[in-house]
Amino acid sequence: MKGFASDNYAGAHPEVLAAIADANDGHAAAYGADPWTARAEELLREHFGEQALSYLVFNGSAANVLSIRALCRPWESVICAAQSHINVDECGAPEWIAGTKLQAVPTLDAKLTPELVESQIARIGDEHAVQPRVVSISQSTELGTRYSPYEISALAHFAHERGLLLHVDGARLANAAAALDVPLRAITTDVGVDAVSFGGTKNGILLGEAVVFLQPEHAEGFRYLRKQTLQLASKGRFLAAQFIALLEGDLWRRNAAHANAMAARLGAALVGAPGITITQPVQANGVFAIVPRGVTEALQRDWPFYVWNEHTGEVRWLCAWDTTEDEIDAFAAAVKQACAVV
Amino acid sequence: MKGFASDNYAGAHPEVLAAIADANDGHAAAYGADPWTARAEELLREHFGEQALSYLVFNGSAANVLSIRALCRPWESVICAAQSHINVDECGAPEWIAGTKLQAVPTLDAKLTPELVESQIARIGDEHAVQPRVVSISQSTELGTRYSPYEISALAHFAHERGLLLHVDGARLANAAAALDVPLRAITTDVGVDAVSFGGTKNGILLGEAVVFLQPEHAEGFRYLRKQTLQLASKGRFLAAQFIALLEGDLWRRNAAHANAMAARLGAALVGAPGITITQPVQANGVFAIVPRGVTEALQRDWPFYVWNEHTGEVRWLCAWDTTEDEIDAFAAAVKQACAVV
Amino acid sequence: MKGFASDNYAGAHPEVLAAIADANDGHAAAYGADPWTARAEELLREHFGEQALSYLVFNGSAANVLSIRALCRPWESVICAAQSHINVDECGAPEWIAGTKLQAVPTLDAKLTPELVESQIARIGDEHAVQPRVVSISQSTELGTRYSPYEISALAHFAHERGLLLHVDGARLANAAAALDVPLRAITTDVGVDAVSFGGTKNGILLGEAVVFLQPEHAEGFRYLRKQTLQLASKGRFLAAQFIALLEGDLWRRNAAHANAMAARLGAALVGAPGITITQPVQANGVFAIVPRGVTEALQRDWPFYVWNEHTGEVRWLCAWDTTEDEIDAFAAAVKQACAVV
Amino acid sequence: MKGFASDNYAGAHPEVLAAIADANDGHAAAYGADPWTARAEELLREHFGEQALSYLVFNGSAANVLSIRALCRPWESVICAAQSHINVDECGAPEWIAGTKLQAVPTLDAKLTPELVESQIARIGDEHAVQPRVVSISQSTELGTRYSPYEISALAHFAHERGLLLHVDGARLANAAAALDVPLRAITTDVGVDAVSFGGTKNGILLGEAVVFLQPEHAEGFRYLRKQTLQLASKGRFLAAQFIALLEGDLWRRNAAHANAMAARLGAALVGAPGITITQPVQANGVFAIVPRGVTEALQRDWPFYVWNEHTGEVRWLCAWDTTEDEIDAFAAAVKQACAVV
Repeated sequence: MKGFASDNYAGAHPEVLAAIADANDGHAAAYGADPWTARAEELLREHFGEQALSYLVFNGSAANVLSIRALCRPWESVICAAQSHINVDECGAPEWIAGTKLQAVPTLDAKLTPELVESQIARIGDEHAVQPRVVSISQSTELGTRYSPYEISALAHFAHERGLLLHVDGARLANAAAALDVPLRAITTDVGVDAVSFGGTKNGILLGEAVVFLQPEHAEGFRYLRKQTLQLASKGRFLAAQFIALLEGDLWRRNAAHANAMAARLGAALVGAPGITITQPVQANGVFAIVPRGVTEALQRDWPFYVWNEHTGEVRWLCAWDTTEDEIDAFAAAVKQACAVV
Repeated sequence: MKGFASDNYAGAHPEVLAAIADANDGHAAAYGADPWTARAEELLREHFGEQALSYLVFNGSAANVLSIRALCRPWESVICAAQSHINVDECGAPEWIAGTKLQAVPTLDAKLTPELVESQIARIGDEHAVQPRVVSISQSTELGTRYSPYEISALAHFAHERGLLLHVDGARLANAAAALDVPLRAITTDVGVDAVSFGGTKNGILLGEAVVFLQPEHAEGFRYLRKQTLQLASKGRFLAAQFIALLEGDLWRRNAAHANAMAARLGAALVGAPGITITQPVQANGVFAIVPRGVTEALQRDWPFYVWNEHTGEVRWLCAWDTTEDEIDAFAAAVKQACAVV
Repeated sequence: MKGFASDNYAGAHPEVLAAIADANDGHAAAYGADPWTARAEELLREHFGEQALSYLVFNGSAANVLSIRALCRPWESVICAAQSHINVDECGAPEWIAGTKLQAVPTLDAKLTPELVESQIARIGDEHAVQPRVVSISQSTELGTRYSPYEISALAHFAHERGLLLHVDGARLANAAAALDVPLRAITTDVGVDAVSFGGTKNGILLGEAVVFLQPEHAEGFRYLRKQTLQLASKGRFLAAQFIALLEGDLWRRNAAHANAMAARLGAALVGAPGITITQPVQANGVFAIVPRGVTEALQRDWPFYVWNEHTGEVRWLCAWDTTEDEIDAFAAAVKQACAVV
Repeated sequence: MKGFASDNYAGAHPEVLAAIADANDGHAAAYGADPWTARAEELLREHFGEQALSYLVFNGSAANVLSIRALCRPWESVICAAQSHINVDECGAPEWIAGTKLQAVPTLDAKLTPELVESQIARIGDEHAVQPRVVSISQSTELGTRYSPYEISALAHFAHERGLLLHVDGARLANAAAALDVPLRAITTDVGVDAVSFGGTKNGILLGEAVVFLQPEHAEGFRYLRKQTLQLASKGRFLAAQFIALLEGDLWRRNAAHANAMAARLGAALVGAPGITITQPVQANGVFAIVPRGVTEALQRDWPFYVWNEHTGEVRWLCAWDTTEDEIDAFAAAVKQACAVV
């Protein structure tokens, strides 16, 4: 069953389960007024800076949509890559729940640049048009690529000059930081990011994400928004304990770096192999490729993974914290063999 | 003050004001339960077919957003041209009021084709993705182009094959019908359209549009949607009287045909003139052009009109029911002179 | 056909139609950038004070819902009388369009008091509960009663002390001001009201209402909200001209005072008559009563009016700017006769 | 720290943690396409009937709001008790997220009756009024009371006769079933309920609730609604494993029956004690009481619990699956002593 469908096909790291069991100790105040939540928030400040205000939620869709609700007024829009999760994988939640229009920009690698953002800024002050307010990028991206700190800094600088804010969908922020070998704040707080959806689920916990505001003023009233958006856990300690497990030591980095290494190993094994086109740089924990017709279905019988683009046939292979070198090697061999047969 | 900014800079045709005065006769039941509304609905059936169910609303934004609310469930999306009014000129109303995601397709001429629609259909049955439900086209388009009956028929056929519905933003439907010299139903009912926003405001009335359902089942509960969306006029007779003035005789066609003729005259005068590029076929009541830098601002001092595209400098010149030949000739001369000077 | 169903069964005053015809003069900038709109806004400042910022919209539902959208954040609520129009006559628009919870308070006479408002203020700062933000009253009320300037002042004072704002649904504000023989500002601006839905439709125009902000800071971004909520008229001059007709002279007061006088005449004719219970003080242009079973249906054959409460059988008789003394006398006689027969 | 604030102050039952650990076994398909979810759904069918369609979500707010989204069209309303959780404890989520108006009925004991529901049904077919569609009751209620199977059957019967549906907020459905000593279906499926929010969090799991449709047609498109409402867990097995732990044996009943027994013990110890008024029948796991001024704050220093009504001073004491007899006895003694001192 183990395959390359998604990093959320993996289970939870044992240290996470242990943390949950530790937190299961008698009664605790509900709705986040417990010591575990306080500790998780403290750790998030350690990682994202003293000013960071963090709010735990259930999943990444919620972290993204709540970020939008917090940052945009009803007539304001979000500029994002056409391939971004908020644009194509939330079943319209940004529009329905936040009421927000997305201005989706076609890109080759799922990355925005100041020039691409610029192309979406128009009709400022014209009441017939939504007014751009947020630039939202994914780090690492939905195509397994990543932004350098410099690229994010340039986007933040440009955004702020134009009166916009910069949001990072960080469902895989840990993968990007690990790949760059920098602290989390080096690609967020320190380069001008305003708000982050910081992911846990895809990096070895059961479930849970954090909305992290790096400028406290954007968090005004957020407690109410979280509750109203159905994202306030009553037994908050069990979300918090998982983040403590991730962030108190280096589990977040160990898990992410391992997944990245496995993707790199897979990419290295396949690059240049006959019939295989690696379509994106392998910069995090995913490999994107186009393989000959027929190969995809044959491989999927033994190894779960997704076709990423129905129109081009591009496939996605994601590695997780628990992917092993043996699995990579076996899968790479299988891919090469299948392509060779065709 | 008279210029080419928009067909809604023009006032109301005298026959429309006369119809309002006629309707101002004692008391009448409110909220559409009056004889004028019944007559307007009857006329709309004459124009759009016996099955047509029509609902008057205040403006075109409302007609479009209400059409979307009626046709889409919360997880369903609308495929439209990137230049469409619903995508760029409603200040996010489809997203906020209807909660609906638009799938906006880049086009050269603001027109969709089955191939372009096809490119947006993917991930059917995948709960992470919105599910396409409506194809929305503008007739005539925001770029002054129009669809032939055959083109609409092909879109309707394709849409229905894929389980989609076809909506027409007909803020300028009269212009298209007049230009094609066909009845309104020849480009709607008879070619498979499911719902129409039928415009009046831009064609010589004070204010008012109609949502016309060509398949009655799509109108279920629409009375409630119209009221809830703040579009139920209490003194409905005054909206209805205007539509009676338009539709009882041929005022709708006279007004539209005149505006079209004025645009054709302007286009003919300018095509091939030095420094002027007509950017779109002149097929309704608008002319789109690129003129040398500096010319736009100089001309705008005397003649109001809009820059259509801030990035390219393309301008839009629209003609109305009351534009005169003399005005066209004077403006054409002014444009040519200004371009020549540059 | 003339009866007592509603003040919106009446048509438009001739001076209003004349103003529309006057405004129908050549081209004018669309979307409110025209001289008529500027003049209407100036007149609204004359009536409501120099700081007043006014925005014309199509109907009263829109004026109310837009007021709520402007004044409330998503987690904030509106305290109103259970009988208020926003609570029972908008088909859920405050909830759907504004997303706002109403805290509806049962009352005998559709009027709020500081004590009733106080009863709704609880759990401040508790993220599980909506946070009260606006007190909304109707003046005159849906039951034909009215607030004195002192009563409104007391509500405004109390509201502001508690961090709340005071909104007035003034669909019939003119009737209240006329009945009290005071200027419009005496029951709004001068007694601490923050925002008003100022009605025109029920007082002799074709259609149109104004959202009037008495504190400019609450109007921030309102232009966008109006457009997004489908309430921006393209030919704005025709809305504005009607308000000019109402407000430039004393037409607003003449119309309202006449309607009030007719209601007073009807009330005086019926009070104490056998079988008739006048259920509310007659303080504006409506009379509410309970009559014997069977009388209602018999009367409705000749005189349109509404049953107000299906459960108690209470009926509502509204007078309009064009109701005549003869009609009142004839109807009063008919009511008395019908009751006597029973 | 252990007290009587809420049943969600308690942690998770050890059997639940064990089930999570068991489920943490290699990779599993995400988003509910895993064997644990299939097993949980099977168990829910065993408890609620073969036709039951179940969907796991993160919390009770979500289960309720999603039930409303599934059952109501935009102009339809929900009739509920004024004290219901959906009315007072969701921070306006039904209105914001579902867009739905609640018709909240004052009650003494948080229970609806056919007569109370009847009082809310009016203006059917009138487009100005929301149209009642759902009756929502809580079982057991927010005041610790419960409905008998007969009472629910009568409500279902009445609702269906009027074209309404019956929804049960069953955050504490297990407590009601345990108290009545009946299966879950005896107070839902077998008595005509249409949809249930079936709670787990308050009954000994980490987090998780289920939306259970007892008539499959109401679940149409619900997969999309769940995703769009941000309630689709990627590692769905960890929600499912908890429900397996609850439902495969009798853990759900053991936990609930124990909490109920503790509340009964507390109620029995305090009833008739000087200065204490038990305000509601003790029929599930909560005791509601009014105690002398000053007592509440004194007690809260050692025992966390909530003031339920700021205006009357009524307090709520809830028992959980892990409340002990010793704790009850010590707290009862403390209450009696504190009241005696006053």
